[in-house]
Amino acid sequence: MATSNLLEPDSVAVIGASATVGKLGHTVLRNIIDSGFPGKIFPVNPRGGEILGLKATASISLLPDAPGLAVIITPAVSVPDVVTECGRAGVPLAVIISGGFAESGEEGEMLQKETILRAREENVRIIGPNCQGINLPHLPLCATWPLLVREGKIALISQSGTIGAEMMDRLQIDGLGFSAFISLGNRADLDETDFIRYFQEHDPTAAIALYLEGVKNGPGFRRAVESCKKPLVFLKAGRTESGRRAIISHTRSLAGRYEIWKAFFRQSKVMAADTIDDFYHFSKAAAYLDSPSGKRLLVITSSGGSGVLATDRAAERGFVLPAPSDEAGRLLAEKLPPNAIIGNPLDFTGDATAEHYRDALRVLEGEYDYTMAIFGDPIPGAAESVAGRRRLLVVCLGGGDLQREESGKMAAAGMPVFPSPEIAVECLFALSAADRSGGR
Amino acid sequence: MATSNLLEPDSVAVIGASATVGKLGHTVLRNIIDSGFPGKIFPVNPRGGEILGLKATASISLLPDAPGLAVIITPAVSVPDVVTECGRAGVPLAVIISGGFAESGEEGEMLQKETILRAREENVRIIGPNCQGINLPHLPLCATWPLLVREGKIALISQSGTIGAEMMDRLQIDGLGFSAFISLGNRADLDETDFIRYFQEHDPTAAIALYLEGVKNGPGFRRAVESCKKPLVFLKAGRTESGRRAIISHTRSLAGRYEIWKAFFRQSKVMAADTIDDFYHFSKAAAYLDSPSGKRLLVITSSGGSGVLATDRAAERGFVLPAPSDEAGRLLAEKLPPNAIIGNPLDFTGDATAEHYRDALRVLEGEYDYTMAIFGDPIPGAAESVAGRRRLLVVCLGGGDLQREESGKMAAAGMPVFPSPEIAVECLFALSAADRSGGR
Repeated sequence: MATSNLLEPDSVAVIGASATVGKLGHTVLRNIIDSGFPGKIFPVNPRGGEILGLKATASISLLPDAPGLAVIITPAVSVPDVVTECGRAGVPLAVIISGGFAESGEEGEMLQKETILRAREENVRIIGPNCQGINLPHLPLCATWPLLVREGKIALISQSGTIGAEMMDRLQIDGLGFSAFISLGNRADLDETDFIRYFQEHDPTAAIALYLEGVKNGPGFRRAVESCKKPLVFLKAGRTESGRRAIISHTRSLAGRYEIWKAFFRQSKVMAADTIDDFYHFSKAAAYLDSPSGKRLLVITSSGGSGVLATDRAAERGFVLPAPSDEAGRLLAEKLPPNAIIGNPLDFTGDATAEHYRDALRVLEGEYDYTMAIFGDPIPGAAESVAGRRRLLVVCLGGGDLQREESGKMAAAGMPVFPSPEIAVECLFALSAADRSGGR
Repeated sequence: MATSNLLEPDSVAVIGASATVGKLGHTVLRNIIDSGFPGKIFPVNPRGGEILGLKATASISLLPDAPGLAVIITPAVSVPDVVTECGRAGVPLAVIISGGFAESGEEGEMLQKETILRAREENVRIIGPNCQGINLPHLPLCATWPLLVREGKIALISQSGTIGAEMMDRLQIDGLGFSAFISLGNRADLDETDFIRYFQEHDPTAAIALYLEGVKNGPGFRRAVESCKKPLVFLKAGRTESGRRAIISHTRSLAGRYEIWKAFFRQSKVMAADTIDDFYHFSKAAAYLDSPSGKRLLVITSSGGSGVLATDRAAERGFVLPAPSDEAGRLLAEKLPPNAIIGNPLDFTGDATAEHYRDALRVLEGEYDYTMAIFGDPIPGAAESVAGRRRLLVVCLGGGDLQREESGKMAAAGMPVFPSPEIAVECLFALSAADRSGGR
């Protein structure tokens, strides 16, 4: 598939750009500008004039050079002709945000077919229609909404614009960012299979997160998943009969029985999430952490209660928390304050320092398959003591603004932070299930 | 129990106040000042001098009037004498933050016993020792850390300071606030039973949230829970054998088998959470929403994908989503845009306005036991369209900063906002289990 550099346009046309605040043709153009896209930006509007400080062109055919990308936000009936014009102008990729296609009934379905015929005739690849755009923070190019720009390692592919936007927003707020967002929309041309293949070769992307209602091309999808070398995290909707009915109203996808999906996920070592929250945290774990090589978990904490909750959930998920060896215990007793409880959880109690966490990791890590470090109060230097580790789950809680600052530092150093010990255990459990040390 | 106005002190002494930034005796004094406590504040330090702009007194016995509360942050060995002094000065309540008591071994246990003997001799009630203080935003009085001050309706009682602080922090960030926080510590005198009774009569409190490892007084606790007229939300640690072992290290509580707890929760209609995250969201639901009278759920949404996820989880939890009646469907078709999908979920698609949500609620609410309104993009006026309803779960997602603004308005109007449809369904399920329309 010739999509190898489709997502690296050096210029962008916004067809249906609008000067009216609140209209999508305005919001999207503004976000492209405000995201700092370094190439040329061409607003296209039959009335011409100036929009957001840029001269608008009446038609894409009047541009001197072909833009690398056209974002289309014109009424559905106009879209087939717009696509033809794009093709003739030499545009290789169009993102059609406009709705009113297959999702809206028979007439829309005809329009969608016509659009794709035109695209094929003129060699234009299509994302959408009826999608929420794309976001490529590494260019940067935010051709969607809301405006989010933080670079990271997770590529988001979504059959729901809102769920994609929610993921981007959480990643931005938590300081991790994302490597790409593709809103699939009606998938009239490019689909999830194409983008799994694309992001497999996309350097900034370390993990691929996909919200899916149904697949367009079953066998191709299966092959793409099975051969993908990067961790995959799926939120597959339609686990229940009612959910599958709701999917038919939403995207007309055939959801398929969930038992079959579950077996496929297990076999192909996909991290399968059942909720938006798990989808978010599993994606962080997939991009930044390694799978555990066994079930032995060490919990180090400055909050006894959080250590207990970690222990409960870990035991419920099949992990074991053996006590440190006598030798390690003796070594630690020399380094830790006298009120520290040397066990598993290892509880520093209230007086913990970053040095204590470092000492505990140094002395104990070799005895365990994975470690969870819980920071129950913000501890100066905590970020440095955990940065760069890939078999360590970091949980921060109870620290207010100071903690948010410290968590931000951890994110900047490439350590995802989890908001509770239970969520961290769920991530560890999902990482175990997706262990690909024996290949996918 | 004579605790009826213990938590309304008109003046506070901080014994062990310190001028050294970073010391607890400094942080707690500063937070009391910065929280805006309106009464007199007396730093007590044998060296006298001035601390944070206040004249320090060498001993509590030198104060002209008895403070209504003493916060003690002096070394454990000094605490029995300090308590005697407090009693002789007429202080009715002491919060002992200092550690080094029963949690730290035999010597500490003796000190704790001595402290309580002294307290009984002098009629001083004790919170702690080894606790993280108290926070009463309605006074206001933040005698703990971090500094959090937002007034709300949820009283937090916790055997873990960190878990309490995490709850306060989330409630403050989300704009809801809390009515009180009590860190129980070693519970040498006042315990969870006392505070359930206290907050039952506390006007600002609409729901009581309790993190518990074990109870001190089983029969009294049971009676307090069974007779409590306000909704109760419990996070009970020690569900597993490993968790119960960890509890013995942390608070030496006898956790008890979880099967027995589960049966007790079911009978006494307590909302039982298994994770910090559920604990947080269940508490919001308990304080601001009513239990459903049946299983018929309506989902209205501007995000199709989120509607599907809501449907899946609702079906998994035993709720049903019947379609609207033909008559209601006809009425709505006149009011909603033509691309709206009139079903359940009712999907407004991207062009939703607050007026559409209001129309849908007006026409359909009577046909269902509960409604979930999902806002997939920030919608101007959304807060007004949902405020004041008690059988409505509001979910906002994908809207970035604009959404946070709108969610803040909802919180200010007394509507809790949930971060995902799945969490909202879990809250509804927990509210069902705790339905007390037939009494507790």
